[in-house]
Amino acid sequence: MTKFESILKQITSLKANLFQKDFLLTWDKSQKELELVLYVAEALKYMRDNNISAKCFDSGLGISNFRDNSTRTRFSFASACNLLGLEVQDLDEAKSQIAHGETVRETANMISFMTDIIGIRDDMFLGAGHTYMKEVGEALDEGHSKGVLAQRPGIVNLQCDIDHPTQSMADLLHLKNYFGGLDKLKGKKIAMTWAYSPSYGKPLSVPQGIIGLMTRFGMDVELAYPEGYSLIPDVVDIAKKNAKASGGKFKVSNSMEEAFKNADIVYPKSWAPYSVMQKRTTLLQKGDKDGLKDLEKQCLANNAKFKNWECDEKKMKLTKGGKALYMHCLPADITDVSCKEGEVSAKVFEKYRIETYIEAGYKPYIIASMILTNRFKNSADILKKLYKNGTQRIIV
Amino acid sequence: MTKFESILKQITSLKANLFQKDFLLTWDKSQKELELVLYVAEALKYMRDNNISAKCFDSGLGISNFRDNSTRTRFSFASACNLLGLEVQDLDEAKSQIAHGETVRETANMISFMTDIIGIRDDMFLGAGHTYMKEVGEALDEGHSKGVLAQRPGIVNLQCDIDHPTQSMADLLHLKNYFGGLDKLKGKKIAMTWAYSPSYGKPLSVPQGIIGLMTRFGMDVELAYPEGYSLIPDVVDIAKKNAKASGGKFKVSNSMEEAFKNADIVYPKSWAPYSVMQKRTTLLQKGDKDGLKDLEKQCLANNAKFKNWECDEKKMKLTKGGKALYMHCLPADITDVSCKEGEVSAKVFEKYRIETYIEAGYKPYIIASMILTNRFKNSADILKKLYKNGTQRIIV
Amino acid sequence: MTKFESILKQITSLKANLFQKDFLLTWDKSQKELELVLYVAEALKYMRDNNISAKCFDSGLGISNFRDNSTRTRFSFASACNLLGLEVQDLDEAKSQIAHGETVRETANMISFMTDIIGIRDDMFLGAGHTYMKEVGEALDEGHSKGVLAQRPGIVNLQCDIDHPTQSMADLLHLKNYFGGLDKLKGKKIAMTWAYSPSYGKPLSVPQGIIGLMTRFGMDVELAYPEGYSLIPDVVDIAKKNAKASGGKFKVSNSMEEAFKNADIVYPKSWAPYSVMQKRTTLLQKGDKDGLKDLEKQCLANNAKFKNWECDEKKMKLTKGGKALYMHCLPADITDVSCKEGEVSAKVFEKYRIETYIEAGYKPYIIASMILTNRFKNSADILKKLYKNGTQRIIV
Repeated sequence: MTKFESILKQITSLKANLFQKDFLLTWDKSQKELELVLYVAEALKYMRDNNISAKCFDSGLGISNFRDNSTRTRFSFASACNLLGLEVQDLDEAKSQIAHGETVRETANMISFMTDIIGIRDDMFLGAGHTYMKEVGEALDEGHSKGVLAQRPGIVNLQCDIDHPTQSMADLLHLKNYFGGLDKLKGKKIAMTWAYSPSYGKPLSVPQGIIGLMTRFGMDVELAYPEGYSLIPDVVDIAKKNAKASGGKFKVSNSMEEAFKNADIVYPKSWAPYSVMQKRTTLLQKGDKDGLKDLEKQCLANNAKFKNWECDEKKMKLTKGGKALYMHCLPADITDVSCKEGEVSAKVFEKYRIETYIEAGYKPYIIASMILTNRFKNSADILKKLYKNGTQRIIV
Repeated sequence: MTKFESILKQITSLKANLFQKDFLLTWDKSQKELELVLYVAEALKYMRDNNISAKCFDSGLGISNFRDNSTRTRFSFASACNLLGLEVQDLDEAKSQIAHGETVRETANMISFMTDIIGIRDDMFLGAGHTYMKEVGEALDEGHSKGVLAQRPGIVNLQCDIDHPTQSMADLLHLKNYFGGLDKLKGKKIAMTWAYSPSYGKPLSVPQGIIGLMTRFGMDVELAYPEGYSLIPDVVDIAKKNAKASGGKFKVSNSMEEAFKNADIVYPKSWAPYSVMQKRTTLLQKGDKDGLKDLEKQCLANNAKFKNWECDEKKMKLTKGGKALYMHCLPADITDVSCKEGEVSAKVFEKYRIETYIEAGYKPYIIASMILTNRFKNSADILKKLYKNGTQRIIV
Repeated sequence: MTKFESILKQITSLKANLFQKDFLLTWDKSQKELELVLYVAEALKYMRDNNISAKCFDSGLGISNFRDNSTRTRFSFASACNLLGLEVQDLDEAKSQIAHGETVRETANMISFMTDIIGIRDDMFLGAGHTYMKEVGEALDEGHSKGVLAQRPGIVNLQCDIDHPTQSMADLLHLKNYFGGLDKLKGKKIAMTWAYSPSYGKPLSVPQGIIGLMTRFGMDVELAYPEGYSLIPDVVDIAKKNAKASGGKFKVSNSMEEAFKNADIVYPKSWAPYSVMQKRTTLLQKGDKDGLKDLEKQCLANNAKFKNWECDEKKMKLTKGGKALYMHCLPADITDVSCKEGEVSAKVFEKYRIETYIEAGYKPYIIASMILTNRFKNSADILKKLYKNGTQRIIV
């Protein structure tokens, strides 16, 4: 049995499907649905690496709706759409008439007449991003049920205020391959820790996504941050429940060193405290520029108390055999490289730099998998068909 | 005979073609040419709805040249190009060197070496948009005849200062389907009326497009606006002549209520008076910011006298059986939804909201039809071929 | 033997290949490699003109990274990618997070997971553009060798501080066709001269590209500019060596008239002096706005001393038979058309306008050829396959 056939077999045995289900939060999905996304991503990567076309769409649009800057997620989404045969069309809200008072409901329909997937990134406002995605989904449901839309496009969350599933799932696929299987993750300790950054206001979605997902796989997840830098309480509760259900562990501490102790994996990354993000959201909505400046000042001053939350060689020595895998969603704030003092020392980052690139490389396939599983009832069938057709990606 | 075969038969019997004819104004086209666009649009919609690929281009570019903001027309053009196999490339005049003094003539050729269609939206300046499109067309004619361009790209007017043919033709297709046939439109009364809006400077192209087109089909067209809000006189003359030729009616009044009386269809929409648009054009060309502010102030003050020009339930009761079809090109200024006082009450809009979405849904197909009929000598032949090939849009 | 077969034969007989070699500078390439690019471009043009698909990619991205404005090069790159089956994705550095301190190394990998070609335009800073392209290349080499990238994308220089190979190669193809063969260029005199422009700071890459390339083909190249407007000395040295090796001539003078005397081709085009570009680069890097304004003032005042460096009818009479071919990369500063006093008189430009358009029309094919030769080991083989398949570009 070839590697591809073995992946297909695993997909078939899962008996899971995500057909016409938006991918907004990993904790809304069953274990098998998550595994389905991983395996389909691997099948697609196999095909691409072996010059086999994965085009399952002859035409159709993939809309990218970015409400915040992005390089890697933007390119990952574009790559995923292109791989499957969809053309990306950006919904640039500056160029469009949305600023003129259009409602979400109307716009969602107007962009969807020939659209198969909508990727949304909306992580600026606490309480807003996930809500916006659900509103878009409801508008599409209505449009489809009332005959406006011939098909109901799927939605992929490309980062919201709560979760960042394309990141966390790409991270999970990286761990699966790094450690040799999902079952190998059981009992492995991952330290998701805050780290110092000279910038402020970074979203909570990455740490939340990580604790919400890795607790599903029996891992020993330790979340560490300086006092005051807590995450959204509901997500922390979810992580606790997940850990219990999966036979893993979940612990919150206030020490980077403690979290690193005996860790198999470390994920040091800056974020803004939940309470600051709430204040910031209110100020942004009011357009209170002075208030925002004050908040930034306070927040940066507070951050500065925790400059020792840097992932350096000394702390790495505390990890299992001194050899924990360093992870980051990129771009990292690297001391003496991208800033004076940052999340990670230049030496540690350089040692793991290529690993972080490989980690990022799974994202296009994870997104492509989320698109494919959303649009096709039977993922194994469609993959088998594409494989059999054997159309070359590049003519040889 | 299937529905598709019956559409093809109608196309064949028309003996019309728009091969290599730019689509700038509906009144430059014959009745049969307009019908051709409608039927080809329906054939394309049938194919898409039945998962049959309409790709007639293996490669080639569709240029979108938007000189004003747009969501729905931008996405409609992108959808249409994608449906047929063309890739959209935006001519963003801020990013390009056009600002550096390039002439229209040169740019038209520079963007067209591998281009099949150019969609242009230029509705800001009275006297400029249509002129610009003709200039682009002449430059392409020259480039093609002198061996610069292997093919002469077609031009589709995506809204100019005079007409908005992709909108009015989509509206016509909506009416055809809503009432059950073009012949059913004979004698039907449509009230194209001004409506109050808190914004100012909206183009005249929608009302002009509607009176210029609907008078072709024997309809009873009533144009109503407050004194002073007249349209371009030449277009009003065209509407008069059209009505005479088609056995329809065309009337201008200054009362929304009178226009609504016994109407089968109402189309209440704000626009700026012709005379104001002329002044505005002069001020914009001079870059006279103070003058523009003054004009806006005056104009908004004048608009405010006509806040009662709102399409509300009371006025809707005046229509035939109280059940006229409400139409709008979207986005509408909805009272208490998108503004305090607007073109239409929330209740009326909500009742017809889904209908306005369906109306908008014809636009991608109308544009695709304008592209296809421009590039292929025999539309029926090419549609038949695509249908026979039966390539699936999504692999099933 | 058909024209296409004869082109293929010539390609085969060259025994040259550019497989996996970035195209950054023409003088890094052998004579046969340059000829390969020309012939493949001609083969692709033949196919397109005869409605034969040149799609050799089923999917894949072409990244356009423009760090300066552009219309024609942007569209040429987009056309080239589309012709071969790649989808263009813009790396817009304003929208992306590059401004947030990402390194070139990281970004190069992040955009390349499914990318076949990266086109870069970076001509603003002396010493920066070419260096940047090499850095990107090294990052891609590392990413590919360490398993981050399944393929190592190629790089095409779409204009740097040193060379503008897509322009100069398109110019060369124009000359080849205008004079009836590369061998016909031997001994032909080309006057690459400075010309007056009311703007300032134009890059040196076009004149440098022209003297660096045309000296390879036995041409008599005369570079003329007012004292002080010299080019990068290293490039001038390369031109000298090239001329010697090819049996051509290379001369520098300070008189437009002298350069035009007996010329077969004239290429009058403005540029900023090398020394000014150096100062400008330093000021731009410092963000010294006042310094930049001063420099611009001085430079424009100096330019103004040389308003007689205009290509007018009188000077054209000095050329061979008064009939030299006028060339320009466009857009030209045309006296009384795009400015009061410029590089070329309206009469001369109008006489050669269509020729300059035809000249520009080779660029998409030159870029497509650079992509194809970079991605395929055997260009003749792949072209033969595409030709045999005979897929129609437009279904007929």
